Amino acid sequence: MERPVLTVPETLEGWAVLHELFQIDWPRWNKAGAEVQSGLLKSVENYLQKVSTPSAGESAIFSMLGHKGDLLLLHFRRSLEECKEASIGFQKLPFAEYVHVTQSYVSFVELGMYEMTVKLHEEFLKMGLSPESDEWKRKWRTAFEEQRDRMKGRVFPTVPDNRYFCFYPMNKRRGEQKNWYEIPIEKRQTMMRDHGMIGRKYSGQVTQVITGSIGFDDWEWGVYLFSDNPLVFKKLIYEMRFDEASAAYAEFGPFYIGTRLKPDKLAALFEGSVK
Amino acid sequence: MERPVLTVPETLEGWAVLHELFQIDWPRWNKAGAEVQSGLLKSVENYLQKVSTPSAGESAIFSMLGHKGDLLLLHFRRSLEECKEASIGFQKLPFAEYVHVTQSYVSFVELGMYEMTVKLHEEFLKMGLSPESDEWKRKWRTAFEEQRDRMKGRVFPTVPDNRYFCFYPMNKRRGEQKNWYEIPIEKRQTMMRDHGMIGRKYSGQVTQVITGSIGFDDWEWGVYLFSDNPLVFKKLIYEMRFDEASAAYAEFGPFYIGTRLKPDKLAALFEGSVK
Amino acid sequence: MERPVLTVPETLEGWAVLHELFQIDWPRWNKAGAEVQSGLLKSVENYLQKVSTPSAGESAIFSMLGHKGDLLLLHFRRSLEECKEASIGFQKLPFAEYVHVTQSYVSFVELGMYEMTVKLHEEFLKMGLSPESDEWKRKWRTAFEEQRDRMKGRVFPTVPDNRYFCFYPMNKRRGEQKNWYEIPIEKRQTMMRDHGMIGRKYSGQVTQVITGSIGFDDWEWGVYLFSDNPLVFKKLIYEMRFDEASAAYAEFGPFYIGTRLKPDKLAALFEGSVK
Amino acid sequence: MERPVLTVPETLEGWAVLHELFQIDWPRWNKAGAEVQSGLLKSVENYLQKVSTPSAGESAIFSMLGHKGDLLLLHFRRSLEECKEASIGFQKLPFAEYVHVTQSYVSFVELGMYEMTVKLHEEFLKMGLSPESDEWKRKWRTAFEEQRDRMKGRVFPTVPDNRYFCFYPMNKRRGEQKNWYEIPIEKRQTMMRDHGMIGRKYSGQVTQVITGSIGFDDWEWGVYLFSDNPLVFKKLIYEMRFDEASAAYAEFGPFYIGTRLKPDKLAALFEGSVK
Amino acid sequence: MERPVLTVPETLEGWAVLHELFQIDWPRWNKAGAEVQSGLLKSVENYLQKVSTPSAGESAIFSMLGHKGDLLLLHFRRSLEECKEASIGFQKLPFAEYVHVTQSYVSFVELGMYEMTVKLHEEFLKMGLSPESDEWKRKWRTAFEEQRDRMKGRVFPTVPDNRYFCFYPMNKRRGEQKNWYEIPIEKRQTMMRDHGMIGRKYSGQVTQVITGSIGFDDWEWGVYLFSDNPLVFKKLIYEMRFDEASAAYAEFGPFYIGTRLKPDKLAALFEGSVK
Repeated sequence: MERPVLTVPETLEGWAVLHELFQIDWPRWNKAGAEVQSGLLKSVENYLQKVSTPSAGESAIFSMLGHKGDLLLLHFRRSLEECKEASIGFQKLPFAEYVHVTQSYVSFVELGMYEMTVKLHEEFLKMGLSPESDEWKRKWRTAFEEQRDRMKGRVFPTVPDNRYFCFYPMNKRRGEQKNWYEIPIEKRQTMMRDHGMIGRKYSGQVTQVITGSIGFDDWEWGVYLFSDNPLVFKKLIYEMRFDEASAAYAEFGPFYIGTRLKPDKLAALFEGSVK
Repeated sequence: MERPVLTVPETLEGWAVLHELFQIDWPRWNKAGAEVQSGLLKSVENYLQKVSTPSAGESAIFSMLGHKGDLLLLHFRRSLEECKEASIGFQKLPFAEYVHVTQSYVSFVELGMYEMTVKLHEEFLKMGLSPESDEWKRKWRTAFEEQRDRMKGRVFPTVPDNRYFCFYPMNKRRGEQKNWYEIPIEKRQTMMRDHGMIGRKYSGQVTQVITGSIGFDDWEWGVYLFSDNPLVFKKLIYEMRFDEASAAYAEFGPFYIGTRLKPDKLAALFEGSVK
Repeated sequence: MERPVLTVPETLEGWAVLHELFQIDWPRWNKAGAEVQSGLLKSVENYLQKVSTPSAGESAIFSMLGHKGDLLLLHFRRSLEECKEASIGFQKLPFAEYVHVTQSYVSFVELGMYEMTVKLHEEFLKMGLSPESDEWKRKWRTAFEEQRDRMKGRVFPTVPDNRYFCFYPMNKRRGEQKNWYEIPIEKRQTMMRDHGMIGRKYSGQVTQVITGSIGFDDWEWGVYLFSDNPLVFKKLIYEMRFDEASAAYAEFGPFYIGTRLKPDKLAALFEGSVK
Repeated sequence: MERPVLTVPETLEGWAVLHELFQIDWPRWNKAGAEVQSGLLKSVENYLQKVSTPSAGESAIFSMLGHKGDLLLLHFRRSLEECKEASIGFQKLPFAEYVHVTQSYVSFVELGMYEMTVKLHEEFLKMGLSPESDEWKRKWRTAFEEQRDRMKGRVFPTVPDNRYFCFYPMNKRRGEQKNWYEIPIEKRQTMMRDHGMIGRKYSGQVTQVITGSIGFDDWEWGVYLFSDNPLVFKKLIYEMRFDEASAAYAEFGPFYIGTRLKPDKLAALFEGSVK
Repeated sequence: MERPVLTVPETLEGWAVLHELFQIDWPRWNKAGAEVQSGLLKSVENYLQKVSTPSAGESAIFSMLGHKGDLLLLHFRRSLEECKEASIGFQKLPFAEYVHVTQSYVSFVELGMYEMTVKLHEEFLKMGLSPESDEWKRKWRTAFEEQRDRMKGRVFPTVPDNRYFCFYPMNKRRGEQKNWYEIPIEKRQTMMRDHGMIGRKYSGQVTQVITGSIGFDDWEWGVYLFSDNPLVFKKLIYEMRFDEASAAYAEFGPFYIGTRLKPDKLAALFEGSVK
């Protein structure tokens, strides 16, 4: 009997995630007049206060640098529908007249389970279970559901409360010679472990929320980084770039950088002060 | 006598398919006033009711996530002309002033017939028929026309009635080393069968409608997925990505994700509620 | 004496070709009012009637599918200047306010002369002529000028009168391993002959007008296809894709699909009916 | 002592070159009224007359085909500043309201000096000079400055007075296997000589002005071609494409095609006639 | 015991850097009237004077060539927040109505420390220190902090006062065969040293400010060049292109070229004179 080949690592999912990036129409804003501006900002603050504490999940706003956009709204929610509702809520503000959306990303918080997938598979085989049997499937599902419970804090995180914010999407390369998806799972497991080691060196300095976007957006993963020092982003990503998993197999999309904007600092931003 | 080499799998076609993606101009909408808004939504609902039950075919509308667009209109019709008519019907509504088209896709529902093509070819050869003979051609055509009749439900499907919707276009790679179109048909047949096996594991959880767009749009195929759980899209596509047909030979375009919007829930959407 | 290597196949050229694709501004159109609309359509019909029968050449209009554009204007003329004049003539109509140009293509109808180039070259060598001699050049030029006369119908075609229209531009690959321009002419000749064989299988079902655009536009060739069945485009291009000339060496640009629009059916289109 | 390896061919530079491509806003133009139009055209003609004969250099205007743009303004000047001044001069005309810029290119007229670089290097070595010595540098500089004087007509050309105009930018390939910049200079010299041979076959039929844009624009070179027969562009570039320097090592950007527009023919263009 | 492999060169960072590129809306400007224009320019000059001498850092403005943009604002600041504040300060001017942002770049001034990284690593190993020990880390950090102090002038530079300005972003290639991030650090060190040698040949003629943008923008590095002769940019970059570090491993983004614009020359620019 041919032993089936294990290829796909399990993943655990949590929040549905949506972010949208907006460019401010400054000329229109500048001409709105102080009173109107004040009312508009008040309505955005109200909105932010409301969406920041939904029945479940969280929203956060960021001041971004460069022409790609000025404001980024990030939503963690229980479902894609609730993400969309948070998005519509913003668009229905009169403030929407002063911004336009330039980018977005749709994904789910995701934990890749290489270690556990390989280990469990081996254990089950040793126990004499057949991979296609109902027992295997039931035990497998139970194991990962329990794991998801244990990992609740990590798949349903709060938005880390740091000063700086970085986002970039990425793929694993599917090149004609170097193809992540043609490598045995054990080799991928090793590379991901080494990759994780680098991240661990920066623990305390940076918090990362990895999201999976296969089927939802144009890249396979979305990486959200939070830190109190922007150079930590640079050093972490640079160091990882020499790691085999990244050096040979990672493809990076555009990068976005900004600072966390607490709702009560929004008015200051429009006065020209980033607090 | 040199035996001709079989390379091209037959395909069976059904509905002509057109979808168009629209971004809502929220600031303009917000200023339209409740009465005008109500009239506009009524006219869209009427349109949707009408196009949902044409003499043949079906239309459906989806609420989409992210900056790529807010509303997606999908038309299954007997001809490209009827697709275009459905499109113009929407553009002629006063509502068109509040949206603009951002993307579209043109294709025909398609079933790839690798198994039957290879099998029939072998049978006909065994029967001593010559591939260039009229008899071969007549029998070949008849066989596939009969097959198309048997497959009527699959080439002329209704729009599956699930909560979540996913679309992406794709190509088979024509790289300098890995080139789908230079592989013997038997090897492609095997890869497509394995690929189909993965899909079958998800049967009941996801419905897919594959369309062919060679000659009609910028990618070779358009993939429409329908499910009641968005994570099923992610898991299915991720698992397929390790399959040889995808790992080595698939190129993916942008991904679009949304939820089905029944005509009578349209007004709620504009109120900020995704039902 | 080193025998010079033949590399470049001769080409025969005919009409200068320009097409422009326009997106209709439906909201503006919808608000124009019936009387104005009627006048506008009348002026476009007049324009179309006029440009359809210039002193030499022809123009045609097509209703296109999808967001790339709604109307495509195709001009066959004796010179690039006359193409531009046809284009300006359209832009000077008041109707121009209701459309904007999204795409275009500039080329000349072209016949590739692989067979004749190779054959003549061999003949002349056998006749003892020297490729650099004036006699060679004179005889060569004469032969191809005569051939162009014989091929007049093919390099100065009328616009085929079929229901469906397909356009795509393409290149021959100049990859690091697979490079069309580094292959001996005899091998290219064989591949082009096989490629042509497939086309011949579809004769009667599809008419193609190949144009050369090196020096004029971003791809090397523009392919115009005309048929009464859109699935023929799909089957023809799919079958060709397995052919060596295409499988290994063709790069395809975007695809455009539509239906022929006779001037007297223009008003119906704006009413929502594709006739 | 290790003999230093010669890699970089000298170049001689002349005019600073800027061209800008503009799309005409026809609907706005159409509504301007005959009197206003006449005044606008007069002001453009005045501008063209003035910039056509600056204290040094030249400007020329072209009527272009397709959606990329309608008018192309080409400036040859002594400095980038004078190019910018010519550009601002155009933008300050009231006519600027009826066009918008779509593309541009910045470069300097350049002669590549492969032959002379290799020859001089050899000579100097034979003379016993050391490449790092002051004497070598002084003699080297002097030789190329004298050469630039001799080549004055070619690095400070007038705009050729032909009917048709073609522009495209290009790079030398820096691929993973085929990399122009990793080839010994003698091999590059041979390829450039063969490449030049093809150009010489077309002398009298086409005039080319090569410009270097490394450091100034997104491609390495800009190629301006002028001819009285547009098919000569096609035949020349097609023939060159089989040449090793192009076949293996050239990457081409977009192509632009048009006709020369003498200032006194501008009004006719806006009437729909390309003269 | 396995000796850990050194891969990542240390970097020293200084100013946070932001530049934004703006296209002037000339038609709107032309219609503003002399008095309004004069007031607008005065306000920009005031802004420029103010941001040119912040409590720390510097700003500079450049007149750029071509359709990519007309004005480039460059900010050197102590933090990303101060960069954003300088950006908002500009957008809040009434002048903002006459320009729109087209491009930007976010980075930090960076010195790559290949030599010192390799040397120190060797020294520490010779001293018997363990790379994972606290002592190693403390001494390592101290050494680079001291180095950063010594290099203060280079990581916190003033904006060089030259006439011409050039910017381009770049990556190190991560190809399937040629991958910078898979090369041993000693080999990279050698290539970077050779690369630096070429730069040194141009010292006095060109000043370069290298910035690191990993984690901040879409390319890995941003290169700012300043010179009194634009041809020096061309010759320097061309010569470097033959250097192994560039020839085999550099990928270049778009190039931007312009001239320094002192605040008191801004009004002249709008009059059409580049001073």
